[in-house]
Amino acid sequence: MKIHVVKMGGRLIHDKKLLNISISYFCKLKGSKILVHGGGSKADYFLDQMNIPKKIIQGRRITDKTTLDIVVMTYAGVLNKNIVSLLQYYHCNAIGLCGADGNCIKSYIREKVNDINYGYVGDIKESKDINTNFIKLLLRNNITPVFCSITHDGMGNLLNTNADTIASNIAVSLSKQKCSIELHFCFDKIGVLRKIDDSNSYFRKINFSLFQEIIQNNFVFGGMIPKLENAFFALKNGVSKVSIGLPNYLMDSSKKTILCL
Amino acid sequence: MKIHVVKMGGRLIHDKKLLNISISYFCKLKGSKILVHGGGSKADYFLDQMNIPKKIIQGRRITDKTTLDIVVMTYAGVLNKNIVSLLQYYHCNAIGLCGADGNCIKSYIREKVNDINYGYVGDIKESKDINTNFIKLLLRNNITPVFCSITHDGMGNLLNTNADTIASNIAVSLSKQKCSIELHFCFDKIGVLRKIDDSNSYFRKINFSLFQEIIQNNFVFGGMIPKLENAFFALKNGVSKVSIGLPNYLMDSSKKTILCL
Repeated sequence: MKIHVVKMGGRLIHDKKLLNISISYFCKLKGSKILVHGGGSKADYFLDQMNIPKKIIQGRRITDKTTLDIVVMTYAGVLNKNIVSLLQYYHCNAIGLCGADGNCIKSYIREKVNDINYGYVGDIKESKDINTNFIKLLLRNNITPVFCSITHDGMGNLLNTNADTIASNIAVSLSKQKCSIELHFCFDKIGVLRKIDDSNSYFRKINFSLFQEIIQNNFVFGGMIPKLENAFFALKNGVSKVSIGLPNYLMDSSKKTILCL
Repeated sequence: MKIHVVKMGGRLIHDKKLLNISISYFCKLKGSKILVHGGGSKADYFLDQMNIPKKIIQGRRITDKTTLDIVVMTYAGVLNKNIVSLLQYYHCNAIGLCGADGNCIKSYIREKVNDINYGYVGDIKESKDINTNFIKLLLRNNITPVFCSITHDGMGNLLNTNADTIASNIAVSLSKQKCSIELHFCFDKIGVLRKIDDSNSYFRKINFSLFQEIIQNNFVFGGMIPKLENAFFALKNGVSKVSIGLPNYLMDSSKKTILCL
Protein backbone atom coordinates (compact mmCIF):
# COMPACT_ATOMS: atom_id res chain seq x y z
CA MET A 1 0.00 0.00 0.00
CA LYS A 2 1.49 3.36 -1.07
CA ILE A 3 0.51 6.30 1.14
CA HIS A 4 1.26 10.03 1.05
CA VAL A 5 1.54 11.60 4.51
CA VAL A 6 1.29 15.39 4.18
CA LYS A 7 1.93 17.80 7.04
CA MET A 8 0.66 21.37 6.56
CA GLY A 9 1.56 24.13 8.95
CA GLY A 10 2.18 27.83 9.51
CA ARG A 11 0.55 30.36 7.19
CA LEU A 12 -0.94 27.59 5.02
CA ILE A 13 -3.39 26.96 7.85
CA HIS A 14 -4.07 30.53 9.02
CA ASP A 15 -4.46 32.25 5.67
CA LYS A 16 -7.87 31.28 4.27
CA LYS A 17 -6.80 31.70 0.62
CA LEU A 18 -3.56 29.75 1.08
CA LEU A 19 -5.46 27.00 2.91
CA ASN A 20 -7.91 26.70 0.05
CA ILE A 21 -5.10 26.38 -2.53
CA SER A 22 -3.16 23.93 -0.35
CA ILE A 23 -6.21 21.73 0.16
CA SER A 24 -7.02 21.74 -3.56
CA TYR A 25 -3.45 20.53 -4.29
CA PHE A 26 -3.74 17.88 -1.60
CA CYS A 27 -6.97 16.60 -3.19
CA LYS A 28 -5.17 16.06 -6.51
CA LEU A 29 -2.82 13.51 -4.93
CA LYS A 30 -3.76 10.09 -6.27
CA GLY A 31 -4.25 7.07 -4.02
CA SER A 32 -4.20 6.83 -0.23
CA LYS A 33 -3.33 10.01 1.64
CA ILE A 34 -3.21 11.36 5.17
CA LEU A 35 -3.19 15.01 6.23
CA VAL A 36 -1.65 16.29 9.47
CA HIS A 37 -2.06 19.95 10.37
CA GLY A 38 -0.64 22.35 12.94
CA GLY A 39 -2.18 25.65 13.91
CA GLY A 40 0.02 27.41 16.49
CA SER A 41 -0.74 31.09 16.05
CA LYS A 42 -4.51 30.59 15.73
CA ALA A 43 -4.55 29.32 19.33
CA ASP A 44 -2.62 32.46 20.33
CA TYR A 45 -5.35 34.56 18.73
CA PHE A 46 -8.05 32.93 20.86
CA LEU A 47 -5.90 33.11 24.01
CA ASP A 48 -5.61 36.86 23.36
CA GLN A 49 -9.37 37.15 22.79
CA MET A 50 -10.00 35.57 26.18
CA ASN A 51 -7.26 37.54 27.94
CA ILE A 52 -5.46 34.34 28.88
CA PRO A 53 -1.73 35.07 29.19
CA LYS A 54 0.62 32.93 27.12
CA LYS A 55 3.09 31.05 29.26
CA ILE A 56 6.43 30.70 27.54
CA ILE A 57 9.55 29.47 29.35
CA GLN A 58 12.84 29.33 27.45
CA GLY A 59 10.95 29.80 24.19
CA ARG A 60 8.56 26.89 24.74
CA ARG A 61 4.83 27.03 25.46
CA ILE A 62 3.58 25.80 28.81
CA THR A 63 0.18 24.11 28.33
CA ASP A 64 -1.79 24.50 31.56
CA LYS A 65 -5.42 23.25 31.77
CA THR A 66 -6.95 26.53 30.51
CA THR A 67 -4.49 26.74 27.61
CA LEU A 68 -5.13 23.08 26.77
CA ASP A 69 -8.87 23.74 26.43
CA ILE A 70 -8.19 26.60 24.01
CA VAL A 71 -5.65 24.54 22.07
CA VAL A 72 -8.12 21.61 21.77
CA MET A 73 -10.94 23.97 20.71
CA THR A 74 -8.73 25.56 18.08
CA TYR A 75 -6.89 22.56 16.64
CA ALA A 76 -9.50 19.77 17.00
CA GLY A 77 -12.44 22.17 16.69
CA VAL A 78 -12.47 25.11 14.33
CA LEU A 79 -9.32 24.32 12.27
CA ASN A 80 -9.78 20.57 11.90
CA LYS A 81 -13.49 20.70 11.10
CA ASN A 82 -13.17 23.53 8.59
CA ILE A 83 -10.40 21.62 6.80
CA VAL A 84 -12.60 18.50 6.70
CA SER A 85 -15.61 20.40 5.34
CA LEU A 86 -13.36 21.99 2.68
CA LEU A 87 -12.05 18.54 1.68
CA GLN A 88 -15.65 17.28 1.43
CA TYR A 89 -16.40 20.23 -0.85
CA TYR A 90 -13.55 19.01 -3.10
CA HIS A 91 -15.08 15.49 -3.01
CA CYS A 92 -12.34 14.06 -0.82
CA ASN A 93 -14.10 11.97 1.85
CA ALA A 94 -12.12 13.11 4.89
CA ILE A 95 -12.45 12.47 8.61
CA GLY A 96 -11.04 14.76 11.29
CA LEU A 97 -9.21 13.06 14.14
CA CYS A 98 -7.37 13.79 17.34
CA GLY A 99 -5.34 11.03 18.99
CA ALA A 100 -8.23 9.99 21.26
CA ASP A 101 -10.51 9.22 18.29
CA GLY A 102 -10.37 5.50 17.59
CA ASN A 103 -7.50 5.48 20.12
CA CYS A 104 -5.33 6.36 17.15
CA ILE A 105 -2.40 8.19 18.83
CA LYS A 106 -1.38 7.53 22.40
CA SER A 107 1.21 9.72 24.06
CA TYR A 108 2.85 10.28 27.45
CA ILE A 109 2.85 13.47 29.50
CA ARG A 110 6.31 15.04 29.10
CA GLU A 111 8.37 14.73 32.24
CA LYS A 112 9.99 17.83 33.71
CA VAL A 113 12.99 19.00 31.71
CA ASN A 114 15.50 21.11 33.70
CA ASP A 115 12.78 21.59 36.34
CA ILE A 116 10.34 22.99 33.73
CA ASN A 117 6.87 21.46 33.85
CA TYR A 118 5.45 21.71 30.32
CA GLY A 119 1.95 20.79 31.52
CA TYR A 120 -0.40 18.95 29.17
CA VAL A 121 2.19 18.15 26.49
CA GLY A 122 2.39 14.62 25.13
CA ASP A 123 5.31 12.77 23.57
CA ILE A 124 4.89 9.71 21.35
CA LYS A 125 7.28 6.98 22.48
CA GLU A 126 7.10 4.09 20.05
CA SER A 127 5.45 3.00 16.83
CA LYS A 128 2.87 0.85 18.65
CA ASP A 129 1.41 4.09 20.05
CA ILE A 130 -0.02 4.70 16.56
CA ASN A 131 -3.11 2.59 15.85
CA THR A 132 -2.19 1.61 12.30
CA ASN A 133 -5.05 -0.94 12.04
CA PHE A 134 -7.57 1.86 12.49
CA ILE A 135 -5.78 4.16 10.01
CA LYS A 136 -5.61 1.36 7.44
CA LEU A 137 -9.31 0.56 7.97
CA LEU A 138 -10.13 4.15 7.00
CA LEU A 139 -7.77 4.18 3.99
CA ARG A 140 -9.13 0.85 2.70
CA ASN A 141 -12.58 2.48 2.74
CA ASN A 142 -11.31 5.51 0.78
CA ILE A 143 -11.59 7.77 3.82
CA THR A 144 -8.78 10.33 4.24
CA PRO A 145 -7.70 10.87 7.88
CA VAL A 146 -7.01 14.49 8.88
CA PHE A 147 -5.03 14.65 12.13
CA CYS A 148 -4.78 17.69 14.35
CA SER A 149 -1.93 17.95 16.83
CA ILE A 150 -3.81 16.65 19.89
CA THR A 151 -3.14 13.19 21.34
CA HIS A 152 -4.31 11.41 24.51
CA ASP A 153 -2.75 9.34 27.29
CA GLY A 154 -5.56 6.77 27.64
CA MET A 155 -6.19 8.03 31.18
CA GLY A 156 -8.76 10.62 30.09
CA ASN A 157 -6.25 13.40 29.34
CA LEU A 158 -5.92 15.15 26.00
CA LEU A 159 -2.35 16.30 25.30
CA ASN A 160 -0.76 18.91 23.06
CA THR A 161 1.73 17.30 20.65
CA ASN A 162 3.94 18.74 17.91
CA ALA A 163 2.33 18.21 14.48
CA ASP A 164 5.65 17.42 12.70
CA THR A 165 6.26 14.70 15.29
CA ILE A 166 2.78 13.26 14.69
CA ALA A 167 3.35 13.22 10.92
CA SER A 168 6.74 11.49 11.16
CA ASN A 169 5.50 8.93 13.70
CA ILE A 170 2.45 8.05 11.57
CA ALA A 171 4.77 7.69 8.55
CA VAL A 172 7.21 5.45 10.46
CA SER A 173 4.49 3.24 11.99
CA LEU A 174 2.84 2.64 8.62
CA SER A 175 6.25 1.91 7.04
CA LYS A 176 6.69 -0.89 9.60
CA GLN A 177 3.39 -2.34 8.33
CA LYS A 178 4.83 -2.85 4.85
CA CYS A 179 3.37 0.39 3.52
CA SER A 180 5.43 2.52 1.12
CA ILE A 181 5.33 6.03 2.56
CA GLU A 182 6.15 9.44 1.10
CA LEU A 183 6.28 12.12 3.77
CA HIS A 184 5.85 15.78 2.75
CA PHE A 185 6.32 18.69 5.13
CA CYS A 186 4.49 21.61 3.51
CA PHE A 187 4.77 25.23 4.55
CA ASP A 188 4.92 28.66 2.88
CA LYS A 189 8.52 28.43 1.59
CA ILE A 190 9.89 26.56 -1.45
CA GLY A 191 12.15 24.46 0.78
CA VAL A 192 14.79 24.72 3.49
CA LEU A 193 16.27 28.16 2.72
CA ARG A 194 20.01 28.67 2.28
CA LYS A 195 19.62 32.33 3.23
CA ILE A 196 16.79 33.19 5.59
CA ASP A 197 16.11 36.52 3.82
CA ASP A 198 16.15 35.10 0.28
CA SER A 199 12.97 33.13 -0.33
CA ASN A 200 14.30 31.87 -3.69
CA SER A 201 17.43 30.26 -2.24
CA TYR A 202 16.96 26.70 -1.06
CA PHE A 203 18.78 23.41 -0.57
CA ARG A 204 17.79 20.93 -3.28
CA LYS A 205 19.08 18.02 -1.24
CA ILE A 206 20.10 17.67 2.37
CA ASN A 207 21.75 14.45 3.52
CA PHE A 208 22.41 13.59 7.14
CA SER A 209 25.98 14.91 7.21
CA LEU A 210 24.92 18.21 5.59
CA PHE A 211 22.09 18.42 8.14
CA GLN A 212 24.59 18.11 11.02
CA GLU A 213 26.81 20.71 9.34
CA ILE A 214 24.06 23.31 8.84
CA ILE A 215 22.86 22.80 12.42
CA GLN A 216 26.39 23.37 13.73
CA ASN A 217 26.82 26.47 11.59
CA ASN A 218 23.43 27.89 12.65
CA PHE A 219 22.11 27.90 9.06
CA VAL A 220 18.67 26.84 10.30
CA PHE A 221 16.71 28.10 13.29
CA GLY A 222 13.63 27.62 15.42
CA GLY A 223 11.00 25.19 14.20
CA MET A 224 13.13 24.07 11.22
CA ILE A 225 15.48 22.13 13.52
CA PRO A 226 12.82 19.74 14.96
CA LYS A 227 11.25 19.53 11.47
CA LEU A 228 14.56 18.28 10.03
CA GLU A 229 15.06 15.99 13.04
CA ASN A 230 11.62 14.50 12.37
CA ALA A 231 12.46 14.16 8.69
CA PHE A 232 15.65 12.17 9.43
CA PHE A 233 13.90 10.12 12.12
CA ALA A 234 11.43 9.07 9.38
CA LEU A 235 14.15 8.27 6.81
CA LYS A 236 16.13 6.23 9.33
CA ASN A 237 13.03 4.21 10.17
CA GLY A 238 11.85 3.04 6.78
CA VAL A 239 10.04 5.98 5.19
CA SER A 240 10.86 5.94 1.43
CA LYS A 241 10.89 9.66 0.61
CA VAL A 242 10.85 12.84 2.69
CA SER A 243 10.66 16.37 1.33
CA ILE A 244 10.02 19.92 2.54
CA GLY A 245 8.45 22.77 0.57
CA LEU A 246 5.34 24.44 -0.81
CA PRO A 247 2.14 22.43 -1.23
CA ASN A 248 2.28 22.80 -5.03
CA TYR A 249 5.43 20.66 -5.14
CA LEU A 250 3.03 17.78 -4.55
CA MET A 251 2.26 18.21 -8.25
CA ASP A 252 5.56 19.70 -9.43
CA SER A 253 8.76 17.99 -8.42
CA SER A 254 11.11 20.73 -9.62
CA LYS A 255 11.25 22.89 -6.49
CA LYS A 256 11.54 21.45 -2.98
CA THR A 257 14.16 20.21 -0.54
CA ILE A 258 14.66 16.45 -0.70
CA LEU A 259 16.05 14.76 2.40
CA CYS A 260 18.25 11.68 2.10
CA LEU A 261 20.47 9.64 4.40
CA MET B 1 -28.24 -5.32 14.26
CA LYS B 2 -29.53 -3.86 17.56
CA ILE B 3 -28.25 -0.36 18.34
CA HIS B 4 -28.72 2.03 21.27
CA VAL B 5 -28.77 5.69 20.24
CA VAL B 6 -28.24 7.85 23.33
CA LYS B 7 -28.60 11.63 23.35
CA MET B 8 -27.09 13.46 26.34
CA GLY B 9 -27.69 17.12 26.93
CA GLY B 10 -28.01 19.97 29.40
CA ARG B 11 -26.28 19.69 32.77
CA LEU B 12 -25.06 16.15 32.01
CA ILE B 13 -22.57 17.74 29.62
CA HIS B 14 -21.58 20.87 31.58
CA ASP B 15 -21.17 19.37 35.04
CA LYS B 16 -17.91 17.42 35.08
CA LYS B 17 -19.08 14.99 37.80
CA LEU B 18 -22.43 14.33 36.11
CA LEU B 19 -20.68 13.83 32.77
CA ASN B 20 -18.35 11.27 34.29
CA ILE B 21 -21.27 9.30 35.82
CA SER B 22 -23.31 9.54 32.61
CA ILE B 23 -20.42 8.29 30.49
CA SER B 24 -19.74 5.40 32.87
CA TYR B 25 -23.41 4.32 32.56
CA PHE B 26 -23.23 4.67 28.78
CA CYS B 27 -20.17 2.38 28.72
CA LYS B 28 -22.11 -0.36 30.52
CA LEU B 29 -24.59 -0.62 27.63
CA LYS B 30 -23.95 -3.90 25.85
CA GLY B 31 -23.62 -4.15 22.09
CA SER B 32 -23.57 -1.43 19.47
CA LYS B 33 -24.13 2.11 20.70
CA ILE B 34 -24.02 5.68 19.45
CA LEU B 35 -23.74 8.84 21.56
CA VAL B 36 -25.06 12.25 20.49
CA HIS B 37 -24.35 15.27 22.69
CA GLY B 38 -25.48 18.85 22.91
CA GLY B 39 -23.66 21.60 24.74
CA GLY B 40 -25.64 24.87 24.49
CA SER B 41 -24.62 26.83 27.56
CA LYS B 42 -20.90 25.99 27.25
CA ALA B 43 -20.84 27.92 23.95
CA ASP B 44 -22.49 30.85 25.78
CA TYR B 45 -19.66 30.75 28.32
CA PHE B 46 -17.02 31.13 25.60
CA LEU B 47 -19.04 33.81 23.78
CA ASP B 48 -19.07 35.75 27.08
CA GLN B 49 -15.32 35.20 27.54
CA MET B 50 -14.69 36.75 24.12
CA ASN B 51 -17.23 39.56 24.60
CA ILE B 52 -19.22 38.36 21.61
CA PRO B 53 -22.86 39.34 22.09
CA LYS B 54 -25.44 36.56 21.88
CA LYS B 55 -27.96 37.19 19.13
CA ILE B 56 -31.37 35.90 20.10
CA ILE B 57 -34.51 36.73 18.09
CA GLN B 58 -37.87 35.46 19.34
CA GLY B 59 -36.07 33.12 21.72
CA ARG B 60 -33.88 31.48 19.06
CA ARG B 61 -30.15 31.83 18.57
CA ILE B 62 -28.86 33.50 15.43
CA THR B 63 -25.62 31.79 14.33
CA ASP B 64 -23.51 34.35 12.48
CA LYS B 65 -19.97 33.44 11.28
CA THR B 66 -18.24 34.47 14.54
CA THR B 67 -20.79 32.59 16.65
CA LEU B 68 -20.45 29.55 14.38
CA ASP B 69 -16.68 29.42 14.98
CA ILE B 70 -17.24 29.47 18.75
CA VAL B 71 -19.99 26.85 18.52
CA VAL B 72 -17.77 24.56 16.40
CA MET B 73 -14.82 25.05 18.78
CA THR B 74 -16.99 24.23 21.76
CA TYR B 75 -19.10 21.33 20.47
CA ALA B 76 -16.70 19.63 18.02
CA GLY B 77 -13.59 20.71 19.95
CA VAL B 78 -13.42 20.79 23.72
CA LEU B 79 -16.70 18.96 24.55
CA ASN B 80 -16.54 16.23 21.91
CA LYS B 81 -12.85 15.41 22.39
CA ASN B 82 -13.05 15.35 26.18
CA ILE B 83 -16.02 12.96 25.98
CA VAL B 84 -14.06 10.72 23.59
CA SER B 85 -10.97 10.68 25.81
CA LEU B 86 -13.18 9.84 28.83
CA LEU B 87 -14.78 6.96 26.87
CA GLN B 88 -11.31 5.68 25.96
CA TYR B 89 -10.40 5.79 29.66
CA TYR B 90 -13.43 3.50 30.28
CA HIS B 91 -12.17 1.20 27.48
CA CYS B 92 -14.93 2.16 25.07
CA ASN B 93 -13.24 2.70 21.69
CA ALA B 94 -15.02 5.92 20.67
CA ILE B 95 -14.61 8.31 17.76
CA GLY B 96 -15.74 11.94 17.83
CA LEU B 97 -17.59 13.16 14.75
CA CYS B 98 -19.26 16.20 13.31
CA GLY B 99 -21.43 15.84 10.22
CA ALA B 100 -18.55 16.70 7.85
CA ASP B 101 -16.44 13.76 9.11
CA GLY B 102 -16.88 10.85 6.73
CA ASN B 103 -19.64 12.98 5.17
CA CYS B 104 -21.87 11.44 7.83
CA ILE B 105 -24.58 14.12 8.24
CA LYS B 106 -25.52 16.50 5.46
CA SER B 107 -27.89 19.37 6.15
CA TYR B 108 -29.34 22.43 4.44
CA ILE B 109 -29.05 26.05 5.56
CA ARG B 110 -32.38 27.02 7.11
CA GLU B 111 -34.34 29.39 4.92
CA LYS B 112 -35.65 32.62 6.41
CA VAL B 113 -38.63 32.07 8.71
CA ASN B 114 -40.92 35.13 9.10
CA ASP B 115 -38.07 37.25 7.69
CA ILE B 116 -35.62 35.97 10.35
CA ASN B 117 -32.27 34.82 8.98
CA TYR B 118 -30.97 32.16 11.40
CA GLY B 119 -27.51 32.22 9.81
CA TYR B 120 -25.38 29.06 9.85
CA VAL B 121 -28.13 26.71 11.05
CA GLY B 122 -28.65 23.42 9.23
CA ASP B 123 -31.75 21.25 8.94
CA ILE B 124 -31.64 17.58 8.02
CA LYS B 125 -34.18 16.86 5.29
CA GLU B 126 -34.32 13.14 4.67
CA SER B 127 -32.88 9.86 5.86
CA LYS B 128 -30.40 9.66 2.95
CA ASP B 129 -28.63 12.70 4.47
CA ILE B 130 -27.30 10.33 7.14
CA ASN B 131 -24.39 8.20 5.88
CA THR B 132 -25.52 4.92 7.46
CA ASN B 133 -22.87 2.88 5.59
CA PHE B 134 -20.14 4.83 7.34
CA ILE B 135 -21.84 4.55 10.76
CA LYS B 136 -22.30 0.80 10.30
CA LEU B 137 -18.66 0.41 9.21
CA LEU B 138 -17.60 1.93 12.54
CA LEU B 139 -20.05 -0.18 14.59
CA ARG B 140 -19.00 -3.42 12.84
CA ASN B 141 -15.43 -2.59 13.92
CA ASN B 142 -16.54 -2.04 17.55
CA ILE B 143 -15.99 1.71 17.30
CA THR B 144 -18.58 3.89 19.08
CA PRO B 145 -19.49 7.09 17.19
CA VAL B 146 -19.87 10.23 19.32
CA PHE B 147 -21.70 12.96 17.41
CA CYS B 148 -21.67 16.62 18.30
CA SER B 149 -24.39 18.91 17.00
CA ILE B 150 -22.51 20.26 13.96
CA THR B 151 -23.38 19.19 10.42
CA HIS B 152 -22.25 20.38 6.95
CA ASP B 153 -23.86 21.29 3.64
CA GLY B 154 -21.24 19.69 1.37
CA MET B 155 -20.39 23.15 0.01
CA GLY B 156 -17.68 23.79 2.61
CA ASN B 157 -19.98 25.20 5.30
CA LEU B 158 -20.30 23.80 8.80
CA LEU B 159 -23.80 24.27 10.24
CA ASN B 160 -25.26 24.35 13.76
CA THR B 161 -27.96 21.67 14.16
CA ASN B 162 -30.13 20.68 17.09
CA ALA B 163 -28.70 17.59 18.86
CA ASP B 164 -32.12 15.98 19.53
CA THR B 165 -32.86 16.25 15.80
CA ILE B 166 -29.51 14.61 14.96
CA ALA B 167 -30.22 11.75 17.39
CA SER B 168 -33.71 11.08 16.03
CA ASN B 169 -32.58 11.28 12.40
CA ILE B 170 -29.69 8.85 12.99
CA ALA B 171 -32.14 6.50 14.75
CA VAL B 172 -34.66 6.70 11.90
CA SER B 173 -32.07 6.25 9.14
CA LEU B 174 -30.58 3.17 10.79
CA SER B 175 -34.10 1.74 11.37
CA LYS B 176 -34.64 1.94 7.62
CA GLN B 177 -31.51 -0.21 7.20
CA LYS B 178 -33.11 -3.08 9.11
CA CYS B 179 -31.46 -2.13 12.39
CA SER B 180 -33.44 -2.42 15.64
CA ILE B 181 -33.02 0.92 17.38
CA GLU B 182 -33.64 2.05 20.95
CA LEU B 183 -33.46 5.82 21.28
CA HIS B 184 -32.80 7.37 24.71
CA PHE B 185 -32.96 11.08 25.40
CA CYS B 186 -30.98 11.59 28.62
CA PHE B 187 -30.96 14.73 30.71
CA ASP B 188 -30.90 15.65 34.40
CA LYS B 189 -34.57 14.80 35.20
CA ILE B 190 -36.17 11.38 35.76
CA GLY B 191 -38.51 11.91 32.82
CA VAL B 192 -41.01 14.36 31.36
CA LEU B 193 -42.25 16.08 34.51
CA ARG B 194 -45.98 16.35 35.31
CA LYS B 195 -45.29 19.41 37.47
CA ILE B 196 -42.31 21.56 36.51
CA ASP B 197 -41.44 22.29 40.18
CA ASP B 198 -41.72 18.67 41.38
CA SER B 199 -38.72 16.70 40.15
CA ASN B 200 -40.28 13.42 41.42
CA SER B 201 -43.45 13.76 39.35
CA TYR B 202 -43.22 12.32 35.88
CA PHE B 203 -45.23 10.73 33.11
CA ARG B 204 -44.55 6.98 32.93
CA LYS B 205 -45.97 6.76 29.44
CA ILE B 206 -46.88 9.37 26.87
CA ASN B 207 -48.72 8.30 23.73
CA PHE B 208 -49.32 10.57 20.77
CA SER B 209 -52.77 11.74 21.83
CA LEU B 210 -51.54 12.52 25.37
CA PHE B 211 -48.61 14.40 23.79
CA GLN B 212 -51.02 16.59 21.79
CA GLU B 213 -53.11 17.15 24.93
CA ILE B 214 -50.19 18.23 27.15
CA ILE B 215 -48.89 20.53 24.40
CA GLN B 216 -52.33 22.17 24.10
CA ASN B 217 -52.60 22.57 27.87
CA ASN B 218 -49.08 24.02 28.17
CA PHE B 219 -47.88 21.19 30.44
CA VAL B 220 -44.48 21.20 28.72
CA PHE B 221 -42.31 24.13 27.68
CA GLY B 222 -39.22 25.23 25.82
CA GLY B 223 -36.82 22.52 24.66
CA MET B 224 -39.14 19.69 25.81
CA ILE B 225 -41.55 20.38 22.92
CA PRO B 226 -39.04 19.75 20.07
CA LYS B 227 -37.59 16.83 22.10
CA LEU B 228 -41.04 15.18 22.20
CA GLU B 229 -41.60 16.03 18.53
CA ASN B 230 -38.30 14.31 17.71
CA ALA B 231 -39.31 11.34 19.86
CA PHE B 232 -42.61 10.87 17.97
CA PHE B 233 -40.92 11.47 14.61
CA ALA B 234 -38.64 8.53 15.50
CA LEU B 235 -41.50 6.26 16.64
CA LYS B 236 -43.54 7.01 13.53
CA ASN B 237 -40.56 6.12 11.34
CA GLY B 238 -39.61 2.70 12.59
CA VAL B 239 -37.62 3.24 15.81
CA SER B 240 -38.57 0.41 18.23
CA LYS B 241 -38.36 2.19 21.59
CA VAL B 242 -38.00 5.81 22.67
CA SER B 243 -37.60 7.03 26.23
CA ILE B 244 -36.65 10.19 28.14
CA GLY B 245 -34.95 10.39 31.55
CA LEU B 246 -31.77 10.16 33.59
CA PRO B 247 -28.74 8.32 32.22
CA ASN B 248 -28.99 5.68 34.96
CA TYR B 249 -32.28 4.44 33.52
CA LEU B 250 -30.09 2.88 30.87
CA MET B 251 -29.43 0.27 33.57
CA ASP B 252 -32.65 0.57 35.56
CA SER B 253 -35.93 0.49 33.72
CA SER B 254 -38.13 1.51 36.65
CA LYS B 255 -37.99 5.29 36.25
CA LYS B 256 -38.27 7.07 32.92
CA THR B 257 -40.87 8.33 30.48
CA ILE B 258 -41.65 5.83 27.74
CA LEU B 259 -43.05 7.21 24.51
CA CYS B 260 -45.49 5.17 22.41
CA LEU B 261 -47.78 5.81 19.45
